Amino acid sequence: MQNQPVIILSHPQLGQNIGAAARVVRNFGITEMRLIAPRDGWPNPDATAMAAGAFGKMEPVRVFDTAADAFTDLQYVLAVTARLRDMEKPVFGLSGAMGKINEMAAKGARTGLLFGPEASGLDNAEVALCQGILTYDVDAEFSSLNLAQAIGVAVSHWRTLCVSETTETQWQSESPLASSADLDGMMGHLQDELTRARFFYPPEKTELMMQNLRNMFMRADLTHQEVQTFRGVIKALARFRGQSKPD
Amino acid sequence: MQNQPVIILSHPQLGQNIGAAARVVRNFGITEMRLIAPRDGWPNPDATAMAAGAFGKMEPVRVFDTAADAFTDLQYVLAVTARLRDMEKPVFGLSGAMGKINEMAAKGARTGLLFGPEASGLDNAEVALCQGILTYDVDAEFSSLNLAQAIGVAVSHWRTLCVSETTETQWQSESPLASSADLDGMMGHLQDELTRARFFYPPEKTELMMQNLRNMFMRADLTHQEVQTFRGVIKALARFRGQSKPD
Repeated sequence: MQNQPVIILSHPQLGQNIGAAARVVRNFGITEMRLIAPRDGWPNPDATAMAAGAFGKMEPVRVFDTAADAFTDLQYVLAVTARLRDMEKPVFGLSGAMGKINEMAAKGARTGLLFGPEASGLDNAEVALCQGILTYDVDAEFSSLNLAQAIGVAVSHWRTLCVSETTETQWQSESPLASSADLDGMMGHLQDELTRARFFYPPEKTELMMQNLRNMFMRADLTHQEVQTFRGVIKALARFRGQSKPD
Repeated sequence: MQNQPVIILSHPQLGQNIGAAARVVRNFGITEMRLIAPRDGWPNPDATAMAAGAFGKMEPVRVFDTAADAFTDLQYVLAVTARLRDMEKPVFGLSGAMGKINEMAAKGARTGLLFGPEASGLDNAEVALCQGILTYDVDAEFSSLNLAQAIGVAVSHWRTLCVSETTETQWQSESPLASSADLDGMMGHLQDELTRARFFYPPEKTELMMQNLRNMFMRADLTHQEVQTFRGVIKALARFRGQSKPD
């Protein structure tokens, strides 16, 4: 089905959960699932046993080492996490998240939903790579969902809100959205130039400051063309610096 | 929680599914579950093992011999079934069903959702006792849901559509959003530096290029703090330029 989000499981532990996830993902018409560093390797017989044949009716599951690798061809990924994090990112409930997924897909974005491992959930570095956060409104006194159930909740809401009763949103840009690779390139370029300009002080703050800048740019849903434009800006601002003496 | 539907499992076979169902039912704030003639009796240790403590945080599960017995204090029950049946009953999708549950609860009805056994689904006599039918929009080529997943789909949609607020996107920044003056100041600063760097060529394009850059930043909904940070970036990138010779 066109415009479906890719379902991405980071460091899943139990094959049973991967298999149960594949079954419900396929039930609701989604055909692409990715794994980041599954604990017990891949393929996994426990997953196959629980999937009720789902793997035979979807694209081959692709396995990646890191979230950055898994995201390279995606433009809009939401991290599904219960814990609120101190990040400058939008936080959606289920309806809002699916509305946004639908909007971004209508703009031509490939979208994804990222789920963390059973015991510990997503780590902050992974959440930082996502454009936003999806948090479920669960009962505060009993909030821990099974991983495959959490995935079932997301994909069934996607189906209900984006397929069964979709209202198409139109986008009026002729340039495609920037890929993760575009954004990575731009952020690397910016970090190089800022490092040369001794912007990061003390140097330990580099990672946090780059994360904050990245969050800012991610929220803008940049197009490919805008990334090119902004790289021109960085280049122009920095252009004569290498030829001068520092003060 | 008031006005919640009672979750009723008819002739469930596997204790694991009953336990997994209880867990997700409780996750979404529902505290009453009933069983009709569970195959392996009740209580069931497999159910307890899968429930992650849910049974201790809900009303005791009540067991009945027949659907009619289980329904005596309920006024509005929907049968959740994939198969269309030749019955004069309304058939709802998830949104419609939850809207109806909400409406009936607001009228003072006690409501319920009835789920059939894993292998065979509900029989016609049980469906006949219900006020309507809830059918999920699943993929026709892979339509068989796990029982606990089917229950998770229903209760999460109930929560989303009947409990959570409809405008649910939150924002978790502690810094206030940037004012127009903040943004004007930043764009002016950027334009000055880019002009010095001879970025605008030909000069007639200045206005259009600044408009494009401004659109980009506006979409990011910058905070006051982020505008400050970005002005630091502009300053750092441009810092030595004034002291050097153009090439």
